[in-house]
Amino acid sequence: MPHIALSTEHIGIRGAMAFRPETARPLNELVEILLTGPSTLSKGERELIATYVSSRNCTHFCASIHGAIAAAHLDGDEALVKQVKADFTRAAISDKMKALLVIAGKVQQDGKLVTTGDVDAARRLGATDLEIHDTVLIAAAFCMYNRYVDGLGTVQPDDEALYRERGRMVARNGYVNTSREYLGEDAVHSS
Amino acid sequence: MPHIALSTEHIGIRGAMAFRPETARPLNELVEILLTGPSTLSKGERELIATYVSSRNCTHFCASIHGAIAAAHLDGDEALVKQVKADFTRAAISDKMKALLVIAGKVQQDGKLVTTGDVDAARRLGATDLEIHDTVLIAAAFCMYNRYVDGLGTVQPDDEALYRERGRMVARNGYVNTSREYLGEDAVHSS
Repeated sequence: MPHIALSTEHIGIRGAMAFRPETARPLNELVEILLTGPSTLSKGERELIATYVSSRNCTHFCASIHGAIAAAHLDGDEALVKQVKADFTRAAISDKMKALLVIAGKVQQDGKLVTTGDVDAARRLGATDLEIHDTVLIAAAFCMYNRYVDGLGTVQPDDEALYRERGRMVARNGYVNTSREYLGEDAVHSS
Repeated sequence: MPHIALSTEHIGIRGAMAFRPETARPLNELVEILLTGPSTLSKGERELIATYVSSRNCTHFCASIHGAIAAAHLDGDEALVKQVKADFTRAAISDKMKALLVIAGKVQQDGKLVTTGDVDAARRLGATDLEIHDTVLIAAAFCMYNRYVDGLGTVQPDDEALYRERGRMVARNGYVNTSREYLGEDAVHSS
């Protein structure tokens, strides 16, 4: 049961966004830019960062939906997503991605844990400053989204098929368009 | 020293925002709506929530600037801001605000710690669902801003007078306008 009068029609963050369309707009815009905008990191890689952070925060809804979106971008490779959540050091991802996930994991705990050594390691493996910036901001942003979803006690179903279906939809349409479909025009940026 | 090539002209989050104007736009818009938009919580009360969460995350820049903005909204009462950071249960704020700060403190740790009892207590003291929602989202959002500022190793000066001066400016002009002044039109929402 949500802590406040959220519509039970919408699950997870969608319930919270439907309750407060004014804040839903920048929240959707931020995730759209970070996870689907132009980047030298693939959409699958960025969704893996979001999934990893959400998984470490134990936010079932976010870890499930972003895991499903990541898999949709990665040719349906759900085993890879599970491996990143369980132990990314043994996952079939690039060494650069592993170095970025080290940074993301530290930001998830406390941004002050990120060291010059962590950043140098990522850079030596080919990470650009923009990729490092976006990794830090994706990790930080999911510490917000996760707390928003959990702190309001939103509905977080336990149905893998549901996340798989919605994950494919978001992977296809993006966040702002999916939100528009769920919540109506008011909830999203209209320009 | 910042971990990536941020402009040394700007301190704290301004350096990160100048580096990536695309994400600065929704980040500024979110804080503008939450902390300065229409609300039954005063601007001073909302800034106290932001200050308290930033202080618990030990993010010097955010705790200092939002503490200064809070004080500017509260007739310059810096002692009250210090008391909220040190022990809000003994501060001269309303019982409703104390109940909201309990919720904010739990969200800062982990949203799942918020209980029905915490929310009922706030409601009994007059908190509306929208106030509870905004408290959760302010606390969650500052867990993002704090990690963004710390995770990039931004410059966080140790000069109280500087924060006091900037705090008054933001209290007067708001976030989006102040950002426009610092960073130029590109960094902010143009509509």
